[in-house]
Amino acid sequence: MRPYILISNDDGYQAAGLQYLIKTLRNVADLLVLAPDGPRSGYSCAITTKNPFTFHRVSHEEGLEVYACSGSPVDCVKLAFNILLPRLGRRPDLVVSGINHGDNSSVNTFYSGTMGVVTEGTFQGVPSIGFSLCDMASNADFSACGPYILRIVEKVLREGMPPLTCLNVNFPRTDGTYGCSMDCNPATECGEVSAKSHEKDPYRGIKICRMAHSNWVEEVEECRRPGSGSPYYWLTGRVNELELEAEDTDRWALYHGYVAITPQTLDSTAYNLLNAWREDPELCR
Amino acid sequence: MRPYILISNDDGYQAAGLQYLIKTLRNVADLLVLAPDGPRSGYSCAITTKNPFTFHRVSHEEGLEVYACSGSPVDCVKLAFNILLPRLGRRPDLVVSGINHGDNSSVNTFYSGTMGVVTEGTFQGVPSIGFSLCDMASNADFSACGPYILRIVEKVLREGMPPLTCLNVNFPRTDGTYGCSMDCNPATECGEVSAKSHEKDPYRGIKICRMAHSNWVEEVEECRRPGSGSPYYWLTGRVNELELEAEDTDRWALYHGYVAITPQTLDSTAYNLLNAWREDPELCR
Repeated sequence: MRPYILISNDDGYQAAGLQYLIKTLRNVADLLVLAPDGPRSGYSCAITTKNPFTFHRVSHEEGLEVYACSGSPVDCVKLAFNILLPRLGRRPDLVVSGINHGDNSSVNTFYSGTMGVVTEGTFQGVPSIGFSLCDMASNADFSACGPYILRIVEKVLREGMPPLTCLNVNFPRTDGTYGCSMDCNPATECGEVSAKSHEKDPYRGIKICRMAHSNWVEEVEECRRPGSGSPYYWLTGRVNELELEAEDTDRWALYHGYVAITPQTLDSTAYNLLNAWREDPELCR
Repeated sequence: MRPYILISNDDGYQAAGLQYLIKTLRNVADLLVLAPDGPRSGYSCAITTKNPFTFHRVSHEEGLEVYACSGSPVDCVKLAFNILLPRLGRRPDLVVSGINHGDNSSVNTFYSGTMGVVTEGTFQGVPSIGFSLCDMASNADFSACGPYILRIVEKVLREGMPPLTCLNVNFPRTDGTYGCSMDCNPATECGEVSAKSHEKDPYRGIKICRMAHSNWVEEVEECRRPGSGSPYYWLTGRVNELELEAEDTDRWALYHGYVAITPQTLDSTAYNLLNAWREDPELCR
């Protein structure tokens, strides 16, 4: 029997990245797509608690059903596992999210609705992978991602994932310079590399990475309303690289043309501090 | 000079838990409150990307300024660090979130707007602590939390926090049975303890904990619209305890009447899998 894969994302079911993912994975698996009915970027692991949500079937054909949901990315996964999959009588072998339009490495992981899907899939007990392309351009080119997606998906289908562990996969952009999302300095600014021509495979291979330490700066911009002049605020900004030279990080891999696989754990206990604080008699008296 | 603390939450600036936090911390620090203008439960680390947001000052007196923001909990922190604090010419010594109305231990950490504030405060480079009371009742009793909050806050002000590390503090409810939020089995169902009388300190002390492994089940309920009968869906459900007997976890501590401090890291790299996958020549060829 063919593998069965649940696909969702945070850009909505019509997004080019999701359509490319469908095209790629149809060759190897039956697919259930349950994705937001529009953009939900920056939704993180948000859940809809104050309102109900709905979903409807968009299309169905042999081996591919597509549903759209009014909720958040995590709502989509909860809806799939609690309502839709039981009705269909199947349990997925894998949850795949993306391909996101934009970088989800390092600090961006935390704000990412793409990775919200992956977190939720993991809590549902199914191996889960998020794919993101570090290019927010409307004509972003996903075409080089396919072989890497298949290689990674087939490995996870074959080997599974340890409990509470998932994968965050980011592809560098291929528009002539490697790099992360449009908020980042392109790799050429590192003075090291420029992209290979895009004839065949523009990527240099895969790196298994840790999350780089970075943060966002210049994040909020004030605007003024015409007429009243009252202020309002937009999120904006750029990633501030805090360890750009560290070759074992996702950011380094991306800037240098590698597909970055960051294995992530959902046990976020800080064991070092746990052990230190346990020895404080004053605190735990 | 008195310490300076930024306070936010996900229940909104008018929430009783935040008001209690202000009352408690005013004794030891100057306070800047920048919190959502209404409930934002379940917002996780969501950021507002498609719309602008606004904020306004609600009140100000010596050592206490209160602002309300139309954005998410994380937006509040970004707004504080990027706009408001530079204008005020101060940088906080600490970010404190809560006291949340409801449990944020174990799996709930990931959906929590309270912990969204803490995550963002940590990325801004300031030691950050989230406080939650495992009681969603409208008359939830925060009165026993104060001495614990002061003890923890004073330790962090004195010692700081390691990079990328923060604290998630949960208080058991004190309504006669210990336990977590109303979605959980009270501790009495564990057949072990019932709460001490609430005369003085209803808690048994502090436990430094790791995150328990748990997930949510029975999470989505279908309803039918009057007239058309078309379906819509609400999030609901209960926490499914996966290691209730493990005495080093936050859930165990809460069920047994302890204040649970879970130190958390924002480096979510799964180092075990990273090392294993790095040795796969087929993948990284």
